[in-house]
Amino acid sequence: MPIGIFDSGVGGLTVMREIVRQLPGENIRYLGDTARVPYGTRSPGTVMKYSVENTAFLISKGIKLLVVACNTSSSVSLELLKEKFPVPVIGVVEPGARAAVAATRLKKIAVIGTETTISSGSYEKAIRALDGSIAVSGVACPLFVPLIEEGWLEGEVVTLTAEKYLSPVRHSGADTLVLGCTHYPMIRRVVEDIVNCDGASGAVKISLIDSAVETAGEVKRVLGDMNLLRRETGEGEREFFVTDAPEKFARIGERFLGHEIRNISKISLE
Amino acid sequence: MPIGIFDSGVGGLTVMREIVRQLPGENIRYLGDTARVPYGTRSPGTVMKYSVENTAFLISKGIKLLVVACNTSSSVSLELLKEKFPVPVIGVVEPGARAAVAATRLKKIAVIGTETTISSGSYEKAIRALDGSIAVSGVACPLFVPLIEEGWLEGEVVTLTAEKYLSPVRHSGADTLVLGCTHYPMIRRVVEDIVNCDGASGAVKISLIDSAVETAGEVKRVLGDMNLLRRETGEGEREFFVTDAPEKFARIGERFLGHEIRNISKISLE
Repeated sequence: MPIGIFDSGVGGLTVMREIVRQLPGENIRYLGDTARVPYGTRSPGTVMKYSVENTAFLISKGIKLLVVACNTSSSVSLELLKEKFPVPVIGVVEPGARAAVAATRLKKIAVIGTETTISSGSYEKAIRALDGSIAVSGVACPLFVPLIEEGWLEGEVVTLTAEKYLSPVRHSGADTLVLGCTHYPMIRRVVEDIVNCDGASGAVKISLIDSAVETAGEVKRVLGDMNLLRRETGEGEREFFVTDAPEKFARIGERFLGHEIRNISKISLE
Repeated sequence: MPIGIFDSGVGGLTVMREIVRQLPGENIRYLGDTARVPYGTRSPGTVMKYSVENTAFLISKGIKLLVVACNTSSSVSLELLKEKFPVPVIGVVEPGARAAVAATRLKKIAVIGTETTISSGSYEKAIRALDGSIAVSGVACPLFVPLIEEGWLEGEVVTLTAEKYLSPVRHSGADTLVLGCTHYPMIRRVVEDIVNCDGASGAVKISLIDSAVETAGEVKRVLGDMNLLRRETGEGEREFFVTDAPEKFARIGERFLGHEIRNISKISLE
């Protein structure tokens, strides 16, 4: 039985990439809801509805575990999906929060993400459930996803945009910054340079947290606990589903996944 | 009976604003499909499906005429809507094309718009149907809509982005530039400055065409021809429907419409 992964589009492929690295033998079914991307500017109720439809589709493919590889959906719909569906459900917020709590020394964490993720307060809740003495600040960066989808991963426009958004992070006193959106690892270097650009001796170095590694680790642990890890050797079988524009998904997605995307079908969820 | 207008989101309010200016007594029902915005990056088939659902909703509100106030939807779904529904349907592409043909002296027109509008070739077809001797070039500007939705209407980021996109327009030899997306009038000044920034004596001045005025004129003419103009004096009644996030629509939309947005309801199209 395969692992199911969904995201609003290509961003979740950064999570899939890490799952493939840690669990190369697993079969995977990935769904990108490209007809309704982006989720990060929509209301929680709408994101919940879309998440339920995505999950129902993957369940119909016989998955043994679901990964919600989208921070916005993890932020607002994880509890609902756990209640409604009979498979283990793993989101990206809790693993990211855990990694951030392990990393911070000053007990100050900043989070960047979409509008809906930040206004949900999901990271703050998850971090403070682990350690109530940690201060958490959040900044929404709505233009990062369109810039990354356009392929503008470096250069003046993305740098200036990031400088504008990240100014409060630089002045927050945080030593840890969570990349609270699965697209953001694609501009990791730009973000890292800006938040650490003072270079003054004694200035705090800010560490970046990307939840993909931690999420993939949790998938491995849960499947191991349930004795559901695939035993066959050899590479697992991967299949992709999108709700719109498969060619564009394949073209842009390859940069996220790190290799060619084949075996892709367009489906309708309505 | 009211006029129905739909757009993927707030962009069509620039068209509604002009309809209100020219026909202040008309009742209007405006639908913004904010749960599925943007349309400009989706495939033609998906845009058609969404356009049919939007139109069916407005027809259920008893409209006497439909305005498709979205260039992407006008580019790919106008014929389908005309076939399927029993009301006059007016798009924004033909009026914009007509205005551009009237304005060009060098018979060279450039068009900027979304990916789907530009790759549909709709402006080229409409312009060349009016005058086959005119050369038409198109440039897709996918980041303009997210920038405008984020409210970054001036400053370095939008200027640099526009410089990147508009470089081919400046070198195309065109004397007329169609703003082929109803969002773009919001950054008209930035675009105008960039395409005319050489300032060299003898350089051609490029005129900008925004289809709102021409589209509103066509609405007036068609309603007049059919003897359907509203006769009562006093301001018409306006009602807004969105598929997601009404507060955000009201907040951002006011800049597009030019006055406060009240009487707004969230609806579901699925």
